[in-house]
Amino acid sequence: MNTHANFDGLEVGYDIPALPGMDEADIQTPCLVLDLDALERNIVKMGDFARAVGVRHRVHGKMHKSVDVAKLQERLGGSCGVCCQKVSEAEVFARGGIRDVLVSNQVRDKAKIDRLARLPKLGARAIVCVDDPANVADLSAAAVRHGTQIECLVEIDCGAGRCGVTSTPAVVALAKAIAAAPGLRFAGIQAYQGAMQHMDRYEDRKAKIDIAVAMVKDAVDALAAEGLTCDIVGGGGTGSYYFEGNSGVYNELQCGSYAFMDADYGRILDKDGNRIDQTEFENALFILTSVMSHVKADRAICDAGLKAQSVDSGLPVIFGRTDVKYIKCSDEHGVIEDSQGVLKVGDKLRLVPGHCDPTCNVHDWYVGVRNGKVECVWPVSARGKAY
Amino acid sequence: MNTHANFDGLEVGYDIPALPGMDEADIQTPCLVLDLDALERNIVKMGDFARAVGVRHRVHGKMHKSVDVAKLQERLGGSCGVCCQKVSEAEVFARGGIRDVLVSNQVRDKAKIDRLARLPKLGARAIVCVDDPANVADLSAAAVRHGTQIECLVEIDCGAGRCGVTSTPAVVALAKAIAAAPGLRFAGIQAYQGAMQHMDRYEDRKAKIDIAVAMVKDAVDALAAEGLTCDIVGGGGTGSYYFEGNSGVYNELQCGSYAFMDADYGRILDKDGNRIDQTEFENALFILTSVMSHVKADRAICDAGLKAQSVDSGLPVIFGRTDVKYIKCSDEHGVIEDSQGVLKVGDKLRLVPGHCDPTCNVHDWYVGVRNGKVECVWPVSARGKAY
Repeated sequence: MNTHANFDGLEVGYDIPALPGMDEADIQTPCLVLDLDALERNIVKMGDFARAVGVRHRVHGKMHKSVDVAKLQERLGGSCGVCCQKVSEAEVFARGGIRDVLVSNQVRDKAKIDRLARLPKLGARAIVCVDDPANVADLSAAAVRHGTQIECLVEIDCGAGRCGVTSTPAVVALAKAIAAAPGLRFAGIQAYQGAMQHMDRYEDRKAKIDIAVAMVKDAVDALAAEGLTCDIVGGGGTGSYYFEGNSGVYNELQCGSYAFMDADYGRILDKDGNRIDQTEFENALFILTSVMSHVKADRAICDAGLKAQSVDSGLPVIFGRTDVKYIKCSDEHGVIEDSQGVLKVGDKLRLVPGHCDPTCNVHDWYVGVRNGKVECVWPVSARGKAY
Repeated sequence: MNTHANFDGLEVGYDIPALPGMDEADIQTPCLVLDLDALERNIVKMGDFARAVGVRHRVHGKMHKSVDVAKLQERLGGSCGVCCQKVSEAEVFARGGIRDVLVSNQVRDKAKIDRLARLPKLGARAIVCVDDPANVADLSAAAVRHGTQIECLVEIDCGAGRCGVTSTPAVVALAKAIAAAPGLRFAGIQAYQGAMQHMDRYEDRKAKIDIAVAMVKDAVDALAAEGLTCDIVGGGGTGSYYFEGNSGVYNELQCGSYAFMDADYGRILDKDGNRIDQTEFENALFILTSVMSHVKADRAICDAGLKAQSVDSGLPVIFGRTDVKYIKCSDEHGVIEDSQGVLKVGDKLRLVPGHCDPTCNVHDWYVGVRNGKVECVWPVSARGKAY
C-alpha cells in the first residue's frame, strides 16, 4: 500500500502536493508553501494600519490569485474588496464570494467588456479603469445591454509609465464622459505608482510618491470643482502604502505583496534603513524544494527551476540559511552552492521567490502549514486567468 | 446574444481563448498561438535529419508539455518517444498514448519513485536517469513491488553542471549496480550538454560538444569492455543536434525547442554565421497580445506581461516588425516603443517569447492557426506538472 496514494497523480488524475494533517516533511516538491502564522500576522498588520489612518484596503488579488487568501484578508484584515488585473480573474473572485471587485486595468476587447458587464450578475460590484474616451461608449453599451452598472475610475499615470492619462484636464474630461454615459458610474481615480515600489531607499520612494500625490490632489480638486466626487481614490503598494495612507488624498490602498512578501520586496529599506522583511512584513510564501542530486561535493541540485518560479526580479533566496546559496536556475533545476557540503539528497529547503506574483501564477496549489503540519491546501483559483 | 458565449469563462466556468473555425482576429489575448505550417515544417525537418544520420529522435516533451504536439512529432517526425523532466509529466504523456517515455532527470523522492514504477501500467516503457548508487535500491524495490521494469540510464554531466557523474569509472560502477538490481534494466547513457546550447558561435558550441562526445565515448567503450551494451546513448538539443547526430557515439537525440523556437535560440548562429531562426527552424510559437492603452504617442501598452511569459532569457521580440519594439515587461503589461505612432488600441501583435519552455508552462492552451483561421485548440496537457 502506497501511503501517498491519496494525492497521487497516477490514480486521481491530477496532482496535489499535500493533504491536510500531513507532516511538512511529506509535502511533494516543488510547491508553494504558506507559513500561515506569518501570513495572518502580515494581514492583520496591514489591516490595522489602514484602520489607524482611516483608509480602506482593497487587497490586490492579482498577487495571490486565491479566493481563500482574499477571504482571509477580508476576515482578519478587514479588506473592503479585491482588485485584480483581468476580467477572467475578477470572475473567479466574484464566483468565490468576493462582493466588491475592481479590475485595476484597461479593458478594451469587446468580449472582455461583455464579461465585465455581466460581473454584477455574479453578485459583485464591478469597477474598472478607463484612460481613453473611446472606451466609454463600449463600456456603456455593454452595461446597458445587460442591465447592469459598471463603475469607472479614471486611471492616472502618476509615474508607472503604463496605462493612464497624465493631465488633470484629461481626467476631468474622461470623468464627465463617464458620468454622462448610461450604465456607467464615475467612481473616482486609480493612481498606482508601480515604478517606485522597488526602489531601495525610503527617501527615493517618497520623492516619487510626492509627485504622484500632487498630481492626484490636483485632479481630485478639479473634479470637485465640477461637482464630481471621487468615491474611490485608489493606489499604493507594499513599498509605498504609508505614503498614500497618510496623504489625505488617497482613501483606498491596493497592496498585494505585503501578505506573502518576496526577496525583491524584502530588500527595500524602511525609513530607518532596515530591510522591510525584517521590520514590516514577514516572508510567508516559500517554494519548497528538495535536493535531488549531489554528485559534486560543493554543488547540490534542487528540483525548483524556471517551471517553479519567475526569476524576472532575481534568483530566490534560501530562507534562514547563510551556509548555502541558490546560484543558478534552469528549466527544471536549481544549482545550490554548498561549499561546506552540508546538504544531502532529499533535504528540503524553503526558497523565498524573487518575485511573488508571477511565481504564484505557475503553481496550482498553496500548501498552508503551521507548526510543521499541513493545515490546508488551497487552489491558486485564478491561475492562468490572463484574459 | 454574445457571439463569444461559447468560449466565455463566465458561462462555461473556464477560459478557452479560441474555438476552431474562428478568425485569428477573434482570439482572446494574451494566449499562445502556433503557426501550424511552420510547426509541421520544423518537425519534418528534424525528423528528416535524424533519419538521414541514422539516429532516433526522442522529442523533449518538457518544452511543450503537450500530448497533441508529441503525437504530431511521432506522426510527422518519426519520433521514437518522449523525454520529459518530471514523473508527473511522464504520466500525462503515458496516459495520452505515448508508449516510450524517458524521465531525463533524477527521481529520488519515494512517492515519485513509486509513481515511476507504475508508469508501465499506463502502457509506457519507463526510463529514468541515475547518478547516485544510493538511488538504485529505491528504484529496484519500487519496480519489484509493482511487478514492473524501470530502465535506467546513467547520467553523465558532460558540461551542463547539473546532475550526473563525471568519470568513466563512476559510470561503469553505476551501470553494474543497475544491471544487478531486480526490476531494473541498464539501458545506456544520458549525456545532455545543456550549458552550450545557447552559445552564439557554432565553433564555441562545437568545442564544448567535442569534450562531451569524448567523455561519452570513453564511457561507452568502458561499458562495452565490461559486457554492458548501451541501448540508448541520448542527448542533444536545438543548438547541438548535428554534433551528436554525426558523432557516431550518440544514437538518440532529445531536441525540444526546435519545434517552436524562441528569441533566445533564434539568435544563435549556424556554421555560416547565420541566425538559426533564418536557416534551420522557423518561429512557430507566438504570444498573441493586444494593445490595450496608447495614451502616450510613442508608447503602446499591451496585455502580455510576466503572467504570459518568462523573461529569464530576455524580452520577447515582436515578430515581423521593425517599426515597434517590446521594451519593458511588468506583471500584466508590456510596454511597446512605438516612436512612429503606428499602433492603435485593439491591434494584435505576435510576440516571439524569449524562452519557450517556461513560457508554455504559464498557459493552459495552444491555439493552432493556419491561413488566418483557428484550426485547433490544444491543452498544455502537462502544464504545472512539476512533481
